Amino acid sequence: MKTDKILLDHGSGGKISHRLTTELMLPIFSNSILSELNDGAIFNLEGLRLAFSTDSYTVDPIFFPGGNIGDLAINGTVNDIAMCGGDPVYLSVGLMIEEGLSMQDLEKILSEMGKAAAKAGVTVVTGDTKVVPKGALDKIFINTSGIGLIPPGIDIASHKAKPGDQIILSGTIADHGITILTQREGFSFESTLASDTAPLNHMVRDMLATSPYIHVLRDPTRGGVGTALNEIAEKSQIGIKIYEDKIPLKRDVVGACELLGFDPLYLANEGKLLAFVPTEYTDAVLKTMKKNPYGQDAAVIGEVINNHSGKVVMQTRIGGSRIVDMLTGEQLPRIC
Amino acid sequence: MKTDKILLDHGSGGKISHRLTTELMLPIFSNSILSELNDGAIFNLEGLRLAFSTDSYTVDPIFFPGGNIGDLAINGTVNDIAMCGGDPVYLSVGLMIEEGLSMQDLEKILSEMGKAAAKAGVTVVTGDTKVVPKGALDKIFINTSGIGLIPPGIDIASHKAKPGDQIILSGTIADHGITILTQREGFSFESTLASDTAPLNHMVRDMLATSPYIHVLRDPTRGGVGTALNEIAEKSQIGIKIYEDKIPLKRDVVGACELLGFDPLYLANEGKLLAFVPTEYTDAVLKTMKKNPYGQDAAVIGEVINNHSGKVVMQTRIGGSRIVDMLTGEQLPRIC
Repeated sequence: MKTDKILLDHGSGGKISHRLTTELMLPIFSNSILSELNDGAIFNLEGLRLAFSTDSYTVDPIFFPGGNIGDLAINGTVNDIAMCGGDPVYLSVGLMIEEGLSMQDLEKILSEMGKAAAKAGVTVVTGDTKVVPKGALDKIFINTSGIGLIPPGIDIASHKAKPGDQIILSGTIADHGITILTQREGFSFESTLASDTAPLNHMVRDMLATSPYIHVLRDPTRGGVGTALNEIAEKSQIGIKIYEDKIPLKRDVVGACELLGFDPLYLANEGKLLAFVPTEYTDAVLKTMKKNPYGQDAAVIGEVINNHSGKVVMQTRIGGSRIVDMLTGEQLPRIC
Repeated sequence: MKTDKILLDHGSGGKISHRLTTELMLPIFSNSILSELNDGAIFNLEGLRLAFSTDSYTVDPIFFPGGNIGDLAINGTVNDIAMCGGDPVYLSVGLMIEEGLSMQDLEKILSEMGKAAAKAGVTVVTGDTKVVPKGALDKIFINTSGIGLIPPGIDIASHKAKPGDQIILSGTIADHGITILTQREGFSFESTLASDTAPLNHMVRDMLATSPYIHVLRDPTRGGVGTALNEIAEKSQIGIKIYEDKIPLKRDVVGACELLGFDPLYLANEGKLLAFVPTEYTDAVLKTMKKNPYGQDAAVIGEVINNHSGKVVMQTRIGGSRIVDMLTGEQLPRIC
C-alpha cells in the first residue's frame, strides 16, 4: 500500500512499518550491518565484537501497573542488545520533555531509570535533554541507545533459524500490551494485569553459557509474538509451526483479550523472549531459563519445519491449523 | 531556582539545564564517565578507547535555509563525537513521527540524512521508528547516537584547559540560531542567512594530526559560545579572556541580532568549534583549520588566564571588559 502520509501503522512493528524500513530506509542508508535488521547492529570494531541498539519510548500513559516509561526505556534497550547475544554495558539517555511536565514526575521517571539500570547492571554514560513548548509533545518521550559486548563464539541473528530448531518462549504473552490498553481506555479490571517490563540480559547470559549454539533470540515487543516469528521465518527462509495450547497466557489476559477483541499473538511484550535452539540443547536451555525469575513459565511452543518457507503456521487448540500473518493495521499506538 | 514544573529553560543548554543535569541526573546515574559531562562519553572497552554520544533533534521548522532536521541530526552527533577527539564510525537513528506527516517530507529528511552520513563518512547501522497519534508530537523528532574511535595519544576533555592555552574559534557565530529564529518568526530578511550545519570530524582529524596536544574541543550549539566557554572555565577551574573584536560574525547576523535584540554569544551554532590549544601549537593548528572549508574564518579569539577562575571575561570593542555569564532564560526553544 502506497500512501502519501505517514499512518500510525507505519510505526506498528507490523507489515507496513516493515515495508517502510525495507523500501525507504534500507536503500538510503545502504550497508550490510543495517540490512540484517536485527534488534541491534552487530559488528566488529578493531577486533571487538559489539552490539549497538537504539529505541525511542513514547508510551501513554507514562506510569502503568508494573512499570513506567523510564524502566521500560532502560529494559528495552538492554533487551535489544541481549537479543544480539551481547552483554549490555553502556547506555545513553535522550529525554524529550514537554514544557510544564511536573518535576515530581520527571524525578520519579529518572529514579526508576536509575534502579532499572542498576538491576540490569548497565551504566548510563551520556545523555541529552530537550524541552519543547507545551503542545509540541505529549509529556515525555525517551530515547535510549546502548552498546554491548558479544562474547567470542556467539553468533546470533534473525536469519540463522534452521530446521531442527525448537522454539522456546520465556513466559506468558501480551501482559504489557493488554495492561497499557486497559489503563488507557480506563477499564478497571479487578485483576492482576501488569506490564512484564524486565531486563533479560542475565537470563540470556546464562542461556548462552548453557548452549552457545542458540541460533536466534528475539524479544517480541511491538507487533507481538506473531510478527516476530514472521520476521524470523522470512529472514531465515524457513517455515515455523507453533501450537496454540502451548503458548503461556495469564487467565486475566485471556479474559481481557476476549472481551476487547484483541489477539494476544499481536500484543506487545516487554520482558519476554523467543529462542530458536537446536533440539539437542533445548532441554538444557529450558532448564536454565526456568531457574531465572523471568523464565519460570518458559515453554517450547513450536519448531522450525521443512515446508511453508517464510510462513508461520499455528495448530489451533481444536486441532485445525491456520497461517499467522504479520500484524497489519495498528492495534495500539504508543504501546512502548 | 527550584521549580515544580519543567520550564523551557531546563532544555536551553544554559544555567538552569546545567543544574538539572548536575543536581538531578548525576546523583541518580552516578558514575565517573557521565560526571565528566563531555559532549559524549569517553571510555575504554576491552582496551579500545571509544566515544559514545546521543542527541535528540526537535528543531522547528524542520526545513530551513542551509539544512533540515535530518542533516542536523547526523552532523550534530558526528560533531559531538569529534569533540571527544573521536573518529565517528557508526550511528543509530531513532525517528519519532507524528501521524499525518507527508511521506514526501519524510523521504526528503531521510535522503538528506543519507547524504550527510556519506559526507561525514559514517554508517547508520541501526534504527527505530515510532509513529504517534496526531497532536502527540509536532511533525518529527529525531534522535541520533553514535560511536567513535579515539586514536591513541589523544586526551581531550572539558576539564583539561590550562593557562597558556589559546582559544581558536573555527568561524562565524550565531548563523544557525539567527536563521531558525528569523524563519520561525516569518521575518524575510533580504540576506544570505543560512544555518552553518556541517560535519567537523574531518577538520578535527587534521587538527589532531597537526597537534595531538589540543586540550579541549567543544561545539558551541545550544547556549552558544558564551555558555560553552563558561562550562569549560568551570570544569577546568581556569579563567577565560576573549576579545569581542576578534569574534568572527557575518554582517547580516550582526544586523539581525541588533534588530531583534539577541546576543550572538548565546545563539546556537551547528558547524563551529572551539579549540583550546597550547600557544606553541596555535599557529600550526590555525593554518590546518583554514585549509578546511569549515575553518576558513578560524581565528584566535582569546586565551586562558591565571585569574578569574571559573569565569569568562570579554574585552569589549570599546576597550572595557565585562563578565560573560552562562545563558539564563531560554532565548529560543527548539533551536536544534
